[in-house]
Amino acid sequence: MPSNIVPSNIPDIVIGRLPIYLRALTRLEQEGREVTSSHELGQRLGISSAQIRKDLSHFGGFGKQGTGYQISYLIDQLKQVLKIDREWDVALVGAGDLGHAVANYRGFSDRGFRIVAVFDNDSAKIGQAVGKLTVRAFSEMEAFVREHNIKVAMIAVPAQNAQDVADQLIKAGVRAILNYAPISLNVPTGVYVQYIDPVVHLQRMTYYLD
Amino acid sequence: MPSNIVPSNIPDIVIGRLPIYLRALTRLEQEGREVTSSHELGQRLGISSAQIRKDLSHFGGFGKQGTGYQISYLIDQLKQVLKIDREWDVALVGAGDLGHAVANYRGFSDRGFRIVAVFDNDSAKIGQAVGKLTVRAFSEMEAFVREHNIKVAMIAVPAQNAQDVADQLIKAGVRAILNYAPISLNVPTGVYVQYIDPVVHLQRMTYYLD
Repeated sequence: MPSNIVPSNIPDIVIGRLPIYLRALTRLEQEGREVTSSHELGQRLGISSAQIRKDLSHFGGFGKQGTGYQISYLIDQLKQVLKIDREWDVALVGAGDLGHAVANYRGFSDRGFRIVAVFDNDSAKIGQAVGKLTVRAFSEMEAFVREHNIKVAMIAVPAQNAQDVADQLIKAGVRAILNYAPISLNVPTGVYVQYIDPVVHLQRMTYYLD
Repeated sequence: MPSNIVPSNIPDIVIGRLPIYLRALTRLEQEGREVTSSHELGQRLGISSAQIRKDLSHFGGFGKQGTGYQISYLIDQLKQVLKIDREWDVALVGAGDLGHAVANYRGFSDRGFRIVAVFDNDSAKIGQAVGKLTVRAFSEMEAFVREHNIKVAMIAVPAQNAQDVADQLIKAGVRAILNYAPISLNVPTGVYVQYIDPVVHLQRMTYYLD
């Protein structure tokens, strides 16, 4: 969830499910399907069909009772709602193992995001290739982000550096941060943070194990 | 959420928040704090204090009205509920950039998990060091998982191999899979899957941007 007050009357928990719906719908489309139902989506996702219908009704409802959802139309609508009917330039900070893995991840580009720069403060890494990009000096980051009007960033640096990196990104205009470092970030109102924390996911599953 | 029916009457969405509470409480404890409140937790997490009290009440309620929560007691209770009052052995499959990053992540060991083996099918990687471990051949995986009674695994292989890896893990006895590959896995009832998908988190934030 974003760390600040939600500027909208749609519950953040609903917003959080929309990318999941979008991913499932995209997969259905790749399978050659044209129409789906809340029942089918629910089965694929482990979410009740009633919940899915209710979530989508916040946006006016994209389907008609009994006829299901037109997949391509629903995909377009969700992309508009999530503002990924455009492509967001993304700055990646950290060019270690994780930074490399993130930079080489192929799932960004057709889903609304494009990594346009990678920064690190290790002089051994600066100038090296990471995917199709060249690692830039951390000292160039603020000017670059400002100049290119970058609003989205990913932090893949050690925990002890993450808050400092976040502060500089925010100062340069970044408003959405995906943080891979295992530490909570303090950010001002109007800036959003999401965390990639594998342990949270593991702990959620062990609850169900014997 | 788990992909299957929840064997309990506590909503999965509640279970999903408990690791977040645990992380915040652990951080408070590291800051030297002994007592907190649903209000303070809520402010740190962007969740309403009423929601937090309601979530915790599913487990009998760990605090008294007006006196707040004893942090160390609540941490112990949450660890018991999430079954991480023990340490789970974890198999990691995939020794590429991402596998290395996961293997070197320092946040597992004191939070209930210990990576005990890394597998890959690339002969150039087998025998190489990854953190403190040595990459084992994928062909050894099933026997190893079975012999060591491993119930938890992480998949960090290319999307096209992920389902096959999952099938073999499950056949060997794994019941909880954290999947980094950008593909949905089909698993039988009683097996749980969680996904690490950075794009889902990015899309959730762009909704709030201009």
